[in-house]
Amino acid sequence: MEFTHQLSGYVARVEHGIDRLLPADGTRPSRLHSAMRYSLQAGGKRLRPVLLLAAAELFPAAAGGPDPLPAAVALECIHTYSLIHDDLPCMDNDDLRRGRPTAHKAFDEATALLAGDALLTHAFLLLASSYDPVPGLSLVRELASAAGSQHLIGGQMEDILAEKKPETTAAELEYIHLNKTAAMIEAALVMGGLVARADAQALLILRQAGRQLGLAFQIIDDILDATADTAALGKTAGKDAKAGKATFVKIHGLETARRLAGKASQDAIAEFRKLPGGAPFLVELAAEMAARTH
Amino acid sequence: MEFTHQLSGYVARVEHGIDRLLPADGTRPSRLHSAMRYSLQAGGKRLRPVLLLAAAELFPAAAGGPDPLPAAVALECIHTYSLIHDDLPCMDNDDLRRGRPTAHKAFDEATALLAGDALLTHAFLLLASSYDPVPGLSLVRELASAAGSQHLIGGQMEDILAEKKPETTAAELEYIHLNKTAAMIEAALVMGGLVARADAQALLILRQAGRQLGLAFQIIDDILDATADTAALGKTAGKDAKAGKATFVKIHGLETARRLAGKASQDAIAEFRKLPGGAPFLVELAAEMAARTH
Repeated sequence: MEFTHQLSGYVARVEHGIDRLLPADGTRPSRLHSAMRYSLQAGGKRLRPVLLLAAAELFPAAAGGPDPLPAAVALECIHTYSLIHDDLPCMDNDDLRRGRPTAHKAFDEATALLAGDALLTHAFLLLASSYDPVPGLSLVRELASAAGSQHLIGGQMEDILAEKKPETTAAELEYIHLNKTAAMIEAALVMGGLVARADAQALLILRQAGRQLGLAFQIIDDILDATADTAALGKTAGKDAKAGKATFVKIHGLETARRLAGKASQDAIAEFRKLPGGAPFLVELAAEMAARTH
Repeated sequence: MEFTHQLSGYVARVEHGIDRLLPADGTRPSRLHSAMRYSLQAGGKRLRPVLLLAAAELFPAAAGGPDPLPAAVALECIHTYSLIHDDLPCMDNDDLRRGRPTAHKAFDEATALLAGDALLTHAFLLLASSYDPVPGLSLVRELASAAGSQHLIGGQMEDILAEKKPETTAAELEYIHLNKTAAMIEAALVMGGLVARADAQALLILRQAGRQLGLAFQIIDDILDATADTAALGKTAGKDAKAGKATFVKIHGLETARRLAGKASQDAIAEFRKLPGGAPFLVELAAEMAARTH
C-alpha cells in the first residue's frame, strides 16, 4: 500500500508539473501548443520522471535544494517527442498510442513533426530556465547525451536498420535496447542524483541501476507485446512480431526472455540497495515491474 | 578586401569546427552520423555562426575567454536540423537544398527525420560539453528559447497555417519572419556576447541589431526568391510565389519590400555602431547583405 500510495503521489506531481511547465494551449501558435499538450497529457506510466523524483529524494540535500520537478518534466518532454516521431508514417506508422489517436492522426503530419521538435527543444529550455548553472548545465549534458545520436536516436536508427536485415543478432538487439530504452532510464536516475547533489559514487550506482532497470523494462515490453492484447496495452499488440521485428522473445524465446528480465531486475535491485536508506521505493518499483512478465 | 578576407576566415573556422565537433561518419550508427554530416557539410553562407564569432570578438574578455566555436557550430546544427525537417514531404516537400539533393532524397525520410532530431540534440550536448556552467547554461537558455515553440518552430507552424488561409496580413507575415528567421540571427549575436561576457547593455544592443538584421535578411530572401533564378540561388526559385505563399514582395510589392529591407539594414547598422570599436565587420556585413537586393 505504501508503495502504491507513493507512486500515485509521484505521478500526480508529474501531471501537475506538466500542466504548469508547458506553455498554455492558447499560447501562439495555439495549434502547436495544443499538439504538444495533447501528446504529453495522454497519460502513460510516467516511469522516467517518477524515477527522477524518487532518486532525488534519496539524498539529504534534496530537502533544501532545487525542485526536481522541472527536470522530471523535461525528461517526459523528450520521451514524448520520441514517441510522436516514432509513430509518424515514415517511421512505425502507428495510429494508436496510449489508447488514443497518435499526434499525426489527431492533428496532421506537419503539426506532429513540429510538436515533437518543440517538445525536444522545450526540455532544454526548462532545464536552463529552472536551475542555477550548477547543476543546470550537468543536467543538460546528461539529457542531451542520453537523448542523442549515440543513445536514444542511435538506438532508433539501428532499430530501423535491423528491420531491413534478414537476421538480427543478440548483440545488435542489446545495442538497440540499451540505447533506445535503457539510456533514458539511466539518465532519469542520474539526473535525480544531480539535482540533489549526489556524490560521484552514488551517481555511478544510479547509472548502473538505471542501465539494468532499463534493460529489464525493455525485455518486459517485448514479452508483453508478444503475450498481452491490444486493450490491455493501450497500443497495438503483437505489432513487433507482425513486423518481423527482432525482440528478446523472438531471439531468445519466451522463457529465456523472462529469465533475462528477472536477472536484470535483480541486478538493478542490488544496486538500489546500496543507496542511502536502501531506496525501498525504487527496489519495490523494480520488483513490481518484474512481476508484470507473468 | 579586408571584409572579404575576414569573412572567409570566419567561414573557414566554422567549416573546420563542424568537422571537428560532429561525431565521425563511422561512429555507430554510421548511417545516422553520415546523414548529419551530409546536411551540415553542404556549405551555405554560415551566416549565423559567422555572426556569433564576429560578435564574440568585439569584447576584450574574448581573448582570454572560452572559444566561441562550439557555440557557433551548435547554432549551425539547429539551423541545419530546421532545414532538414522543413524539406520533408509533410512540410515543404523540397528535393533541392544548397544545390544538392535534400537529406530525405539522399538517404530516406526516416533517416532524415532522425538526423534532424540528432542535430537538434547535438547542439545542446555541444554547449554543455564545451563550456563552464557560466556561460554554458545561459547559452543553452538563449538557444532553446530562439529555437523553441514560440520562436523558430512557432514561426514555422504559423507559416504552414498561413498557406492554408486565403489572405495573410502584414502583421501575420511579420510574426512569421521575426520568429522563423530573425530569432535565430538575434540569438547568434547574443550568444557571441554571452561567450565573451558582454555586459547587459551590450547584450541588448546585440539583440536589437540581430532582430533588425534578421528581418532584413528575410525580406531580402523573399526579394531574391521573386527575382533570381534557381541556379543562382542553389534552391528552387520562385517556389514561394508558385505555392501562393505570403512574402514581403507579395504583400508590399517589390519596391516597398526593397525599402523595408533597406530600413531594417540601416537600423541594424546603427545598433552595430554603438558596440565596442564600432563593429566595422558587422556593419559591412549588414551593408553587403542589403546590396544583394538589387
